[in-house]
Amino acid sequence: MNCCRYSYSYLSDFTESVLRYMGLSETDAAVCAKVFLAAEQRGISTHGVIRLSDYFRLWETGRINARPIIRVVHKSPSTAVLDGDGAIGMIPAVRGMQTAIEKAETAGTGWVAVNNSSNFGIAGYYAMMALKHDMIGFSCTNASPLVAPTFSSKPMLGTNPIAIAVPAGKQPPFVADFATTPVTRGKFTVAAKKGERLASGYAQDAEGNPTDDPAAIEHGGSMLPLGGDRIHGSHKGYCLGAAVDILSAVLSGANFGPFVPPMMSYLSMLDEKTGDGWGHFFGAMRVDAFMPTIEFKQRMDKWIKVMRSAPPAKGQEKVLIPGDPERENEKRTAREGITLLPQVVADMQVIAKKTGLTFK
Amino acid sequence: MNCCRYSYSYLSDFTESVLRYMGLSETDAAVCAKVFLAAEQRGISTHGVIRLSDYFRLWETGRINARPIIRVVHKSPSTAVLDGDGAIGMIPAVRGMQTAIEKAETAGTGWVAVNNSSNFGIAGYYAMMALKHDMIGFSCTNASPLVAPTFSSKPMLGTNPIAIAVPAGKQPPFVADFATTPVTRGKFTVAAKKGERLASGYAQDAEGNPTDDPAAIEHGGSMLPLGGDRIHGSHKGYCLGAAVDILSAVLSGANFGPFVPPMMSYLSMLDEKTGDGWGHFFGAMRVDAFMPTIEFKQRMDKWIKVMRSAPPAKGQEKVLIPGDPERENEKRTAREGITLLPQVVADMQVIAKKTGLTFK
Repeated sequence: MNCCRYSYSYLSDFTESVLRYMGLSETDAAVCAKVFLAAEQRGISTHGVIRLSDYFRLWETGRINARPIIRVVHKSPSTAVLDGDGAIGMIPAVRGMQTAIEKAETAGTGWVAVNNSSNFGIAGYYAMMALKHDMIGFSCTNASPLVAPTFSSKPMLGTNPIAIAVPAGKQPPFVADFATTPVTRGKFTVAAKKGERLASGYAQDAEGNPTDDPAAIEHGGSMLPLGGDRIHGSHKGYCLGAAVDILSAVLSGANFGPFVPPMMSYLSMLDEKTGDGWGHFFGAMRVDAFMPTIEFKQRMDKWIKVMRSAPPAKGQEKVLIPGDPERENEKRTAREGITLLPQVVADMQVIAKKTGLTFK
Repeated sequence: MNCCRYSYSYLSDFTESVLRYMGLSETDAAVCAKVFLAAEQRGISTHGVIRLSDYFRLWETGRINARPIIRVVHKSPSTAVLDGDGAIGMIPAVRGMQTAIEKAETAGTGWVAVNNSSNFGIAGYYAMMALKHDMIGFSCTNASPLVAPTFSSKPMLGTNPIAIAVPAGKQPPFVADFATTPVTRGKFTVAAKKGERLASGYAQDAEGNPTDDPAAIEHGGSMLPLGGDRIHGSHKGYCLGAAVDILSAVLSGANFGPFVPPMMSYLSMLDEKTGDGWGHFFGAMRVDAFMPTIEFKQRMDKWIKVMRSAPPAKGQEKVLIPGDPERENEKRTAREGITLLPQVVADMQVIAKKTGLTFK
């Protein structure tokens, strides 16, 4: 094995072993590992194995419950609220989406809010769980405050991602999965390392002036909502991020807005709470609660083919369907394995040493 | 009465009279007039009385059914699909949202897709119908193609707006209502009239090159999705507009993407159909399907107060809550009346002459 390139099974086994060392049940460890690895497969490595050390350190400081009991605390025919019991986010998130799917089986749709959770990795994973049931899936989550509402100088909302997955017939599914900011925080880190400046509309300084400084956040600045500034529609990005926060946290009983606790063990917990942990929101809609599934899939195939056949703009190769880049990446990692950054490998080796495992 | 300034009741009476002349029932005419006038009150005059002449001319050319029978064509405990029977969009849209609210009463949530409709005016009106039932409201619609997907040179999607309304307690409700583009088409028209150029990220020419030409659309160009270009996250705006199209039209049986028929009587109907008319999608979620209503409203009050108290960016006065600008406008029009552009007044006078009514 070359340095920094790994097989799926090697990384998956290691991740599961670490999680079991932390005390997770076999089932829960497998669930979490699958979501971590899905991020790597889909090319969203900012939410992949790199995050394992965050959770490990949170667990070391007693901020993660390794043996959570996820409970339904409120329900109606098409809704439920789950208490995540302080778990690693993937566990209550998978349970939340499963519950939404079960509700949809009987009620046509299912909508589940989750509180007392933490970072759940990639939103798309949960939305996509609906696909094999011939359902449209929806997921979103709040997150630690990094983003300033339009006209504010202070981060009040997370990058609050939204994912929507729609099944098709012969075509691959439509899978949109995006933060409600122009780019992810990860782009700032990469730019800083390369000595590059940020594009316009990504960040502002501590006073709320536009900046191209990739270290803006460390200096009291903020990320900006999708749109960047008011002229380019940042109030719409703010609306989206706010709606995600309300559904995920106000409605679930989790901490909202600036009260969402940090996921970094070296950051101290906040003084004020407005609920428990992080919040998520999941939805599942049975396609045949609207029209016969076969008809819907034919219509989606047509929709996808029509969009793909749109003439490309000058200098562009083709129009993409949401989910295409991630599918390309899945094919590539299946062929070539998963590449980790040297610093992530070093992190894994630190964990290996602490847990008595091996990571080469 | 000064030139071009009118009272609510004068405009409402005239609008209802025109609609009744077209053959609408008393109830349907009142429903439509209320939505037209709500747009004026909320300062979204691009969807206000100015549109009455569009519908009038569509009716003259036989493209509007003045006596629609709106039917439920598919349902489950929490869903329904309505056939809008070629009506003015407001009629099936109000019926759609009412149905979503009724479903939510029993199932916890209600989700309704509508086909065979037309332009429904402002999306926010329908989302806000949920508020007095202590429900969270959602609405969206597709529209005639004006927007190019990221990397495409051709308009394939409408400006596809999304609205979300959330009840609060002592605070006013959260009401987000926005097109999935940086600005509305109306801004292009205004810029052209003033001889101004467009900001970056609003439009591209027929080949897909960025342009600041406010007449770009007339010359074969397109509007751009929220984000503007790939670097600034236009693929996310494209995802949003696409999701609206799928929920509103693929799922309802309406025309989708570039097949959405024009709302202008002078534009000929398209050769190919992928369904019937325009499509909408509505949702209602009973707050107490997630937590006790009083608790939720206290939490929303807190959320709103926290966001309002965020320190403003340098040079800005304050942070707004979605819905604030529209509420300000409602107060202003209640005080000062509703101002119409001279050209809209002239349009109304043309209609008055044709219908034997008076408009001064």
